[in-house]
Amino acid sequence: MSETVKYLLDESRLPRAWYNITADMPEPMAPVLHPVSREPVTADDLASLFPRGVIEQEVSSERYIDIPEPVRRVYRQWRPSPLYRARRLEQALSTPARIYYKYEGVSPAGSHKPNTAVPQAFYNAAEGIRRITTETGAGQWGSSLAMAGAMFGLEIVVYMVKVSFQQKPYRRAFMESFGARCIASPSDTTESGRKILAERPDSTGSLGVAISEAVELAVQREDTHYALGSVLNHVLLHQSVIGLEAMEQMAMADDYPDIVIGCTGGGSNFAGIAFPFMGEQFRGGRSLEVVAVEPAACPTLTRGRFAYDYGDTAHLTPLTKMHTLGSSFMPPGFHAGGLRYHGMAPQISHLAHLGHIKARAYNQLECFEAGLQFARAEGIIPAPEANHAVKATIDEAIRCREAGESRAILFNLCGHGNFDMQAYTDYLAGRLRDDEYDAAEGSMALAGLPSV
Amino acid sequence: MSETVKYLLDESRLPRAWYNITADMPEPMAPVLHPVSREPVTADDLASLFPRGVIEQEVSSERYIDIPEPVRRVYRQWRPSPLYRARRLEQALSTPARIYYKYEGVSPAGSHKPNTAVPQAFYNAAEGIRRITTETGAGQWGSSLAMAGAMFGLEIVVYMVKVSFQQKPYRRAFMESFGARCIASPSDTTESGRKILAERPDSTGSLGVAISEAVELAVQREDTHYALGSVLNHVLLHQSVIGLEAMEQMAMADDYPDIVIGCTGGGSNFAGIAFPFMGEQFRGGRSLEVVAVEPAACPTLTRGRFAYDYGDTAHLTPLTKMHTLGSSFMPPGFHAGGLRYHGMAPQISHLAHLGHIKARAYNQLECFEAGLQFARAEGIIPAPEANHAVKATIDEAIRCREAGESRAILFNLCGHGNFDMQAYTDYLAGRLRDDEYDAAEGSMALAGLPSV
Repeated sequence: MSETVKYLLDESRLPRAWYNITADMPEPMAPVLHPVSREPVTADDLASLFPRGVIEQEVSSERYIDIPEPVRRVYRQWRPSPLYRARRLEQALSTPARIYYKYEGVSPAGSHKPNTAVPQAFYNAAEGIRRITTETGAGQWGSSLAMAGAMFGLEIVVYMVKVSFQQKPYRRAFMESFGARCIASPSDTTESGRKILAERPDSTGSLGVAISEAVELAVQREDTHYALGSVLNHVLLHQSVIGLEAMEQMAMADDYPDIVIGCTGGGSNFAGIAFPFMGEQFRGGRSLEVVAVEPAACPTLTRGRFAYDYGDTAHLTPLTKMHTLGSSFMPPGFHAGGLRYHGMAPQISHLAHLGHIKARAYNQLECFEAGLQFARAEGIIPAPEANHAVKATIDEAIRCREAGESRAILFNLCGHGNFDMQAYTDYLAGRLRDDEYDAAEGSMALAGLPSV
Repeated sequence: MSETVKYLLDESRLPRAWYNITADMPEPMAPVLHPVSREPVTADDLASLFPRGVIEQEVSSERYIDIPEPVRRVYRQWRPSPLYRARRLEQALSTPARIYYKYEGVSPAGSHKPNTAVPQAFYNAAEGIRRITTETGAGQWGSSLAMAGAMFGLEIVVYMVKVSFQQKPYRRAFMESFGARCIASPSDTTESGRKILAERPDSTGSLGVAISEAVELAVQREDTHYALGSVLNHVLLHQSVIGLEAMEQMAMADDYPDIVIGCTGGGSNFAGIAFPFMGEQFRGGRSLEVVAVEPAACPTLTRGRFAYDYGDTAHLTPLTKMHTLGSSFMPPGFHAGGLRYHGMAPQISHLAHLGHIKARAYNQLECFEAGLQFARAEGIIPAPEANHAVKATIDEAIRCREAGESRAILFNLCGHGNFDMQAYTDYLAGRLRDDEYDAAEGSMALAGLPSV
């Protein structure tokens, strides 16, 4: 029997700096605009939300940015994370493809999110901030920030999309175990929330609404900041530890990926694995195929528009040029809650627009089927979000089998499914169905895009 | 801020052999007796339940037993597991104690159980067995065997104690995700189950009943064996990888434990961490204190009797001399389901009887409180079972503070609490209470002990 092989870096090889793809962008990105003036935002505009350390990273064009030692010390609790050669899966698929996966489920919160939660908590604590507000969908991000907050002595307030709050009571318990406060959104604690509730009392919420609530609370108090778990440049920067480690681990395996695959909601786990390899390519290194996988029911890259849009429903955030389904788009309630966002990271959108990233969309049933096939071979049950990357990987491996071609496929297994067993229960019982992208609602949401 | 330190062994230091404490026992153990003849059992008596490879280990007195290479290859997916110096917890407690914990939650099933599930599946598959039956309480063991079964192509049937089956639907989904069949016990699929249901139609089951059902099914078919997740010598043997690694990691930390702590249900995670150190002591090495921590509501070591008893309710298993509350004892439904067993591993019972292991019992509320204190400092939410070890560790660290003494405390964090968030939800909402050991029921159960 073939056995899965682990490539584990020595702790001394934990990256000392994050990689910033802005330094290697083939073309410059469109500026971020102030939501009211529509002029390019300044560092001062962002100072009510984020610490200086983070704002500098957001706008930096330095290729490498040092990871502070206290952050590295926390990273070391679970990093470097393992990279595996999935030989058992290869065998099950009878494929000549070489399948590798980087496994981020080894973090205490079970996903890649602590990679950015820890530095964000660190920079805020270092600047004397006492409280951070945020939103969470599936709960991975809120859980991670709750954990990081406990470590750095910060109070954490999490607005959790109401449908997830109801579907996933254990995520709330997880956050509260770390001392965080978790509020179902839309809530009556903010103007933005009350407005939505007045219009739609039975609203089950969305990430866009939850962001509005968290931002609104953050700007009210000087000791309070806001943190975002994806989309922004500094978040993608922090996630680059994934790809930086993976590059070294692929070298240990004496191999190099022909194709890199990640699932995309806001884009942070995808960027984490892909950007260091893409930067290498832009600097004249080996070229590779890069595939972003999204849910067919929230098809930001495959059916959205590349345009300026708000990050939230109440239009409190800056305007960024990105692939978007429109900030009023309400994604259906499929189980990959981490992928239910109307927008996409501007850096990813920019690179997809330039043709450097291919996007693919899948329905949830085929993704769960792929996830179970992976689990039975590799022993790990993936998060529903990660199943999208698994599905694209299996499809690619089957293509390799049919073409008699041995390509190296690398994907990011961004989290385990321990907190998503209701989804698997429903899938196994035949109770899940595929949601459609509602093209009519989609058109309306796109028609509402700001004219910038 | 102090930071938790990780000691991670290189993969090349993964143990090549398990450690068998039988070789170093200060006095020989009482023989295991056949349930009907009451003569010492022979290897043949056990052959309908277990593969030869496992039976040889059960009765072996060799000090080291080679780990087969296919088992080591699977172990390598998550082993060697990390050992941490809990500096953040030390700081939170203002203790001069040095607190170390070995973390077994990094396995794909989230606990130490795969350490024995994998070799048991391997030996069965190697001997042509196609199906394994077992029981599970909290679900950690059933999940682990389901995973191992998927890896070695075995059909797995799990009898899950009904109260847990109802309380923990996600554990069932976990097992089914790996293709296992999960049946609530008592069930109508066996004679043992039907008998209990006839007497008590509303029975919520017990490990003793579930073992009877699994054993009954196993003996009916030649291609079917039974597997136990704790108690027996070979299970404790497999878990010795924990302590063997920990010995090397303590050496990396240039330290040696003054006290080793583990929680005890059947005893396997406790033996896993403690036996290699105890063996060293018996062979003339440094002496240390060894503490087994159990729930006050199922106080096998602290209030049970050291006597011959059956491992199951229907008395299908051999008789072993152990600490027992009586095989008819029905533990109350507290949340540390993995510690709800009437008996204790004979090797542990023997060593406790000889005075080499101290036992301590705690109520669940104080254990959850300790678990949350640990989580907020160290970032990991422990399983309710592991909270018992955490509680004893914190108590010891506080004693050190009060005595101004810097002792090295090592405990086994045998699993994470990701599947136990209902328990934390109830604890945080103030809905949990402490169960009492029912001394009257206990006396009745003890009165039913066989007269051997």
